[in-house]
This record gives sequence, structure tokens and C-alpha cells, in this order.
Amino acid sequence: MPVQPIKITSAEVIDLRVPTSDQMLGSDPFHKEPDYSSAVLHLETDSELRGVSVVFTLGAGTDWICHGIEDLCQLIVGSSLDEFTSSPITLYRRLVDHHQLRWLHDGVFRMAAGAVINAMWDLWAKSLNKPLWKLLVDLDPEFVVDCIDWRNLQDALTREEAIELLSDRRSNVSFRENQMQDLGPKAYCTAGWLGLSDDQILATIRKLQDQGFDSFKLKVGRDLNQDVQRIKFMRDAIGSECNLMVDANQYWGVPEAKHHVEHYRSFGLKWVEEPIARDDVLGYVELSEAFDDADFGFACGEHAASPVIFKQLIKSNAIKFCQIDAVRVAGVNDVMAIILLAAKYEVPVCPHGGGIALCNMIQHYGMWDQIAVAGHSDSQLVEYIDFLQETVDHPVEVREGRYVTPKAHGWGLEFKQDFLRDHAYPDGRIWKSRPVNRKGARFESL
Amino acid sequence: MPVQPIKITSAEVIDLRVPTSDQMLGSDPFHKEPDYSSAVLHLETDSELRGVSVVFTLGAGTDWICHGIEDLCQLIVGSSLDEFTSSPITLYRRLVDHHQLRWLHDGVFRMAAGAVINAMWDLWAKSLNKPLWKLLVDLDPEFVVDCIDWRNLQDALTREEAIELLSDRRSNVSFRENQMQDLGPKAYCTAGWLGLSDDQILATIRKLQDQGFDSFKLKVGRDLNQDVQRIKFMRDAIGSECNLMVDANQYWGVPEAKHHVEHYRSFGLKWVEEPIARDDVLGYVELSEAFDDADFGFACGEHAASPVIFKQLIKSNAIKFCQIDAVRVAGVNDVMAIILLAAKYEVPVCPHGGGIALCNMIQHYGMWDQIAVAGHSDSQLVEYIDFLQETVDHPVEVREGRYVTPKAHGWGLEFKQDFLRDHAYPDGRIWKSRPVNRKGARFESL
Repeated sequence: MPVQPIKITSAEVIDLRVPTSDQMLGSDPFHKEPDYSSAVLHLETDSELRGVSVVFTLGAGTDWICHGIEDLCQLIVGSSLDEFTSSPITLYRRLVDHHQLRWLHDGVFRMAAGAVINAMWDLWAKSLNKPLWKLLVDLDPEFVVDCIDWRNLQDALTREEAIELLSDRRSNVSFRENQMQDLGPKAYCTAGWLGLSDDQILATIRKLQDQGFDSFKLKVGRDLNQDVQRIKFMRDAIGSECNLMVDANQYWGVPEAKHHVEHYRSFGLKWVEEPIARDDVLGYVELSEAFDDADFGFACGEHAASPVIFKQLIKSNAIKFCQIDAVRVAGVNDVMAIILLAAKYEVPVCPHGGGIALCNMIQHYGMWDQIAVAGHSDSQLVEYIDFLQETVDHPVEVREGRYVTPKAHGWGLEFKQDFLRDHAYPDGRIWKSRPVNRKGARFESL
Repeated sequence: MPVQPIKITSAEVIDLRVPTSDQMLGSDPFHKEPDYSSAVLHLETDSELRGVSVVFTLGAGTDWICHGIEDLCQLIVGSSLDEFTSSPITLYRRLVDHHQLRWLHDGVFRMAAGAVINAMWDLWAKSLNKPLWKLLVDLDPEFVVDCIDWRNLQDALTREEAIELLSDRRSNVSFRENQMQDLGPKAYCTAGWLGLSDDQILATIRKLQDQGFDSFKLKVGRDLNQDVQRIKFMRDAIGSECNLMVDANQYWGVPEAKHHVEHYRSFGLKWVEEPIARDDVLGYVELSEAFDDADFGFACGEHAASPVIFKQLIKSNAIKFCQIDAVRVAGVNDVMAIILLAAKYEVPVCPHGGGIALCNMIQHYGMWDQIAVAGHSDSQLVEYIDFLQETVDHPVEVREGRYVTPKAHGWGLEFKQDFLRDHAYPDGRIWKSRPVNRKGARFESL
């Protein structure tokens, strides 16, 4: 299918913030009052299409990402979609390996680079009238592998191994795609937010079960006794057949993690998520050895800053579930590498969806992984959160506990105009109308 | 000594850029045309003192850091120096663990937080009429340990071990301080920048030897034969008694690093610096095991994004030289933790000084480490670069190959007013007067 000649003419970056902390949604021990937010990038073109991406944030700091994205967009305004599609790694390197900017490292810089890269992939998929997962599924193995920066990965997975892995899967792709044309990856949902009462949690579980969910997550990380009580409560509520996972959001050091997790052995947990710091690879190795005989494995990745951290966690067998995020690393190119690494080492990819619009993106990665890379197993759970889905043109849907396969082109991610206008920070209606002592109040440390 | 009642009244943040790429100073395989730059923070107070710090950058991106520092300064303008000095960890946590901003991670966020923290330490030292190293040396062990965020470190070093380590050293502190009152840490210098000719390198070596240097570094990372030739050339030029180090600036993956470094065995190198990615802890473990019997050890740290990365590198014996940087992690508090970790595991601390004003800061850490923490050995080499020293009121000095002990208060880091004015980006004289096609030209990827 020929790519239309499309040129990037301008970039619009919007600081979008939603005062979710009013209801304490999404709170955990570290992130006490998050305001689910996004740096939203619109790459306008000389066609009727535009490339869209978002970087999820927790409120304060969204402007830092916006500043970065605006700066990086200088490197692509005026370029054509053809330049990108002929060699996606070239844009990746122009951004991630920029000879002066690379000093800024991961975090804001890599996230901003990812925003630009993701918007270009979106534009490409739209130009082909395909959802993003379908664009990825249709790429030749050699092309996929050429999208990846192999510099720091080859001790774990070589180019050649990746091509072989993708090629081996090729014969089965049409069958799998057909199988998933209506219902995509299996979903799971957090029912046990830290701030909720037992009654609230029970109501959430019943609501989710009615929607077909059989996999539930619970926040832990504060008082050991309370945590154990709550795990027991959740297990009793969902029964022994359902999947139960817990998430500590990096609250412990290695010794505290060992101490706490030791008490979690008897509940048939599927995973223990982020028991320790996001970059403590050797800590994860130590934990995984200490709990080698437990039912559960360790999960992490939503805060892993680079493919190099993922490489180490996967290669060393330290994590049993690989939680890619759609906007933490440098876009589709980095995530492709991580999904391929996970496939080689047979670590199920369970994407992180806790945030505004993240589920809309990760469902595409789940599809690609389960159709064209690892194939499918019921351990490849994709996180689902129903917050703020009324704010987009194409909400994610779950049926029978599975994602309804997205049909909209690209990421299918377009916020409604009035939502964008009202929540723009600090001048949108929502923020302007807040009492002065509340506007920006959450910037204060808690 | 009573602390004066001082209040932070405002923050000025300056985007300072120097077109060093005109002379190709500081170039390496990744950073092809760096413009040595700084985000400069002036914390003004209601006294005659101000807190100063800088975050070194390579040109483009300095504005990202400036944006972040300005945002964070909202959290301290109006606070008093007393609040900080009574509990430095409180400010550290308000910044680094900010409940919304911590989502931004390391990189820009941690560097900006470090700028604020470092400026507060500067102000504190100035209020006591002490250079920063002297303030640190005079702190009680308990106070030092209370400055540190132990959450993720205790599997390698506990609070109690750190107190014991500092207390054991206490009896020797006056003697060591006296010994170092004129000449401080031993210095080393890069003579072999990638872009220089043999003749230029030889001239640099002779000039440095005249200043008493006996430790030299060389950039490698491109062609194996050229690298080996140049190592041989350098070794011949300096003789067998001098220290020779090489630096690959993260250019290789693990297999390439092994292949290249294998050819470096016969030159009596002291260290091989940054052979692989900054966050590849297991890669460093693998390399250190493969070259366990070599003369050289591995060095890294200037790009290590957090104390957790340092913890792993040090604890696992993967690096033999710990290259702290003054502005990569979150300021004095983080660096204290890293220096203590290195002392426990007997890894010499060799601070990174490659950048504008970095040497002016790291000399204080070298002093503290060698007086009050690890004690002194000739392996604790502190990097020295004489770029741009004419631009500050108190240039660093080297005599007999050692840093002349700094006497100015705080970091002793104050740029000359006309230099700041002329190099402010993009409106200072230097940038305004550059032809349009050069101004910002280096923003382009190379």
C-alpha cells in the first residue's frame, strides 16, 4: 500500500491535567494525590491526518515534558512521513542519541523523545488506514529488527535471533490475527486501591466480575498486618480460581521487601509488583532467588527507564512478568526491543495501563506480542483501568474479561475537544475556576 | 557557630552556553560537538549571601534543566536556611519524593533537584564562612547519616555501619585536614581527546607534566587498531611509571567491549572507563569477571542516574573506581551516600570533572572523602580540566599534580558577571552575534 506524501507542518503540545485527586483515584504510598495528566502531542501535517501521542504524568511536571517535546519537535517539523517510514531508527537516533541532548538521560528526555516517536508511528498507521497493532503485525521481521537500537542489547538477544524468532512465528500470524479479531488480550484490573474501604473493594470486585474479569490487583506497601489482612480479604472475595496480584509501588528496600513478601506466600498470588526500586536489578535478582519456591513471581517495568534495565531484569530471570509502559521509554522502537527480549526468555509481557490514555496505547502492544511475537498464553495479562474513558473518541472496551480489539486507526487516541480545552493547564475552565488556594495546591509536597 | 537567620527571597536561573564546539574541546564518539554549558541557579536571600549551584550540560537541553529548576524553586522560595540546616533530608524528600513530580524519574528531574539542594548547601557553608568541604568535614557522623535517604541502600550499607565508619575515622580527621591544608586530592587530566593529533597530545602531556601531573586519560571507542596505537603512543610518551586511563564513553555493547578491551591488557592501564551503557550493572559484572586478572579495573559513574545504580556497581565489585559527579544525582545528600558506600567496599572515589565548573565542585567531595570518610590513597584521583577557569572568581588550581585546597566559602563558585551576561542563551552577546545559521545550529543531530 503506497504511503501518501505527507509532511509535518507544525507541532501542538498541550498540558492536560485532570483533578483526579479530588476522588483519590490512583493513589498509592508514594503517589499520594495524583492528578492524572498528559503531555499531549499533535503533529499537524499538510494532509487531513495528524500524529497523536501522549505522555502520562501525575500532574506537576507535565509542563517539563511539554517543554521537552516542543524542543524536540524542531527536529521533525518540515520532515516527511516517508523519511520516517523508510527508516524509523534514523529518527530514533536523531532524538535519543542527539549529541548534546543525550546528556539529559532517561526520565523527561526519553519520555519526550518517545512522544515524538509514538506520534510518528500513529501518523504512519493512519496513513495506511490501520490500527497501530495491525501496522506492527504486518511489518517484515527484518524491518522490525532494523527499528531497534541494538548497541546495548546484543549480549541478551542478537539481531539474528530476533529475526528468527519473528520468522518462526510468521506461519501462525494469520490464524492468531483471525482468532483475535473480536477479542484481544486478557485484561486485569486493580480493585484494591490503598484508600478504599473493604465495602468499596468488594463492590468493585463484583462489578468487574460482572464484566467477565477474573484477575485482580491490590495495592500494598504500608503496614504488614493490614496488607496481609487485605490480601486475605481479597482472596476470600474472589475465590481460589481467580488471579490475585499485589503491587507495592517501590515502597520497600530489599530487606523490608523480603520481610513483607515472606508473609505473602500462602495466598496463591500470581505476582508481587515493584517490591523495590525501579532500577535495583541486583535487588530483583536477590528477591527472585529468595522466593524461587514461591507461587508468585516478581513483576516490574512501568518505571524501568531504559531497554538496558529491562534487558538485565529479563536475562537474569529476576522478573517473571514484564510490565512494559507505552510512554516511559523511547516509543514503539524501544518497546519492540523489550517485547522481543521478553519473548526469547519466555517472560510474559503484561503492559502497565495505570494512567490516562495508557490503556488505549498498550492494547496495541498486547495484540502485537500475542499475534506476532510471543504468541498467546493466559499469563499475558494487560492492565485495564476505566478512568476517564469518556474523554476520548474511541474508549477502550472489555468484554468477557478481554480487550475488545481496537479498530480505529493509529493508536485510536483522540481526546474530545471540549475535554482538552477545559483541562488545559493552567488556563482551562477546570483549573481557572478552582479556588486560588487549590489551583496548583498539589504542587506542594505532602 | 550560630546560623544567621536567612530567608530565600527569590531564585534566578540562567541558561549559560559556551560555544566550545568551535574548538572541538570535550568531544568524544557520542558527544561530537559539545557546547559546554550550565543551568546556573542563584538563590537570593534577605542577607548579602546567595546560594549558587550549576548543572553541567552539553548545550541543547540546558533550557530543559532551567525550566525544571524554576519549577522546583517554588517549593523553597520563602523558606529559611534554618529549616534546611536543621534537617537537610526534609528538603531532599520534598523534592526527590514529591508525590507528583517523582514520576519524572532521574535525568532532568534529579539533576534539577540536585541544583536546588546544592545551592542550599552552598548557602549554608557561606553562612558559616567555610568552604563546602570544611562544612562537611565538621558535621557529626549522626548528622551526615541523617542527610541520607536509606530506603534503597540498606542491603549494601546500613545507617549504623555508616556511623561507625565515620566515627572510626574521626580521631584522624584533624591530622588529615592539617596535611591537606595546602594541597588537596591528587589530580588527573585527559590529554588524548579523540579529535587531537599525536603532536597536539604530546604537547598537552608535556605541559601537564610541567605542572606536576603523572596521571593521564585517553579517549577510545572507535577503531580498534587506532585505539591500540594511540594507547601505545601515550604509554611511550608518559613512561611506565605514570598512570594511564582510557575512556570509551559508553560506546560499546558488552560483546564489543570484551573484544576491544582484550587488546588493552598489555599497557599497564589503571582503568577502563564507561566501556558500556551507564545503567548496565550486569554488563559491568560480566566484564569485571572476564577481566579479573587484568591490571586495570573498570570505572564509571558520571552517568549513573541514582544512588541505586552506584550501590549495585559497588556492592557487586563490578567497578574498581567510583566516578561520582557533582550534578548528575540529587546533590550533596546523594553524593554523601555514594561516597560512604564506596568507602565500605573500598572502592576509590575518583570524581568526574569533565565540564564547566564541575572541578570547582568535585574538589570539595575529594577533600571530604579523603579527610573524613575513606582516608587517603593515591588511587583517589580527582579529574581536572582547565577549560573555562578564567570565567570564575575562584579558579581551581593544581600544584605538584594536586588540587590546591579551596579556601573560598561554599562551593567557591561564582561566574564573572560579564561572562554570564555575554553567554546567556539565546540573547547574550556571544549567541546574538553568531550568524543565523550557526545560532542553535548544533541543535541539529550530527
